Amino acid sequence: MKTLELAKSRKTVRQFKDTSVPLDLVKKAVEVAIEAPSGANYQGWRFLIIEDQELKKGVRLASEDGEKEFYKKVLGDWREWLDESKINWKKPYLEYAPLLVIVLARNDVPYSSESVWLAVGYMLLALEELGLGTVTYTPSDLKLVEDVLPIPSEYRLEAILPIGYSDDDKSKENRENLENVIQII
Amino acid sequence: MKTLELAKSRKTVRQFKDTSVPLDLVKKAVEVAIEAPSGANYQGWRFLIIEDQELKKGVRLASEDGEKEFYKKVLGDWREWLDESKINWKKPYLEYAPLLVIVLARNDVPYSSESVWLAVGYMLLALEELGLGTVTYTPSDLKLVEDVLPIPSEYRLEAILPIGYSDDDKSKENRENLENVIQII
Repeated sequence: MKTLELAKSRKTVRQFKDTSVPLDLVKKAVEVAIEAPSGANYQGWRFLIIEDQELKKGVRLASEDGEKEFYKKVLGDWREWLDESKINWKKPYLEYAPLLVIVLARNDVPYSSESVWLAVGYMLLALEELGLGTVTYTPSDLKLVEDVLPIPSEYRLEAILPIGYSDDDKSKENRENLENVIQII
Repeated sequence: MKTLELAKSRKTVRQFKDTSVPLDLVKKAVEVAIEAPSGANYQGWRFLIIEDQELKKGVRLASEDGEKEFYKKVLGDWREWLDESKINWKKPYLEYAPLLVIVLARNDVPYSSESVWLAVGYMLLALEELGLGTVTYTPSDLKLVEDVLPIPSEYRLEAILPIGYSDDDKSKENRENLENVIQII
């Protein structure tokens, strides 16, 4: 089963090779994403594909400004997971991934957030099939990052997907057993 | 490209054949879903698979109670879309689909809603590959429906996926052209 194979092989990637990514591949992944269903078929999504090096750096710096504040406050098992996973406020992949896909959701349509994330689900499997890696990153302070991006006024930032060929040797995070997450009635 | 093929062929299904659905197929689709990434790997999702006829009927009635109120209020182009699509407060598929998958999100973990919808994206492509149809239905009044379901206290209802073999001849909703939804910078 192809989707099971892709879903199982796919893992989050936070380090990328320098190798550039053909724009057509990323467009192909977005082409898959926009086939997703959406509330009342509003298709309340937009995708900014950022190749510009200065803009990627700007996104990184704005994101890190928000993360520095966030990391002062995060506690408990979330903090433990972050520390164990060696994740901190630094987001170099936003600057050094060959491309960023900025995922936007429209403000004035129903279920746009749900629809956008559903489309991101489609996109992750498509990227895996295309041999490309990513991480679905949502900045802790959205406003700071929105301010450096050309976002139309009726849209908001939902996620940033840095995209490239994996240079990340971290293994996939464990998943719970199926039997633990389903209940049959 | 398999994901593109599945994404393009998949359309929303609201009418189902009587033919029963092997539980193993639905479990396979959930197996795909739970490979999705989630905020801090919390995997804040649970799936209730409802076969019980009385409970399906209860879900339908509770959902319709909420929809009746909602349909009194919805206006503008959302209402137009609903009328054109012949969608109203009646949700017979909740009673007559062979199975319902109730998708739950955990309340006390970060990004659980985003993660759950991402996993639903995985699940939709898996169901398409398995030859099964569904619609991602979110009740207008979640509380009414939560009250008839055995939902653990730390979870909330995000979506209901009625699942079965398609008996719906409505064609797929149009999608915008790729070039209209991307911007390259």
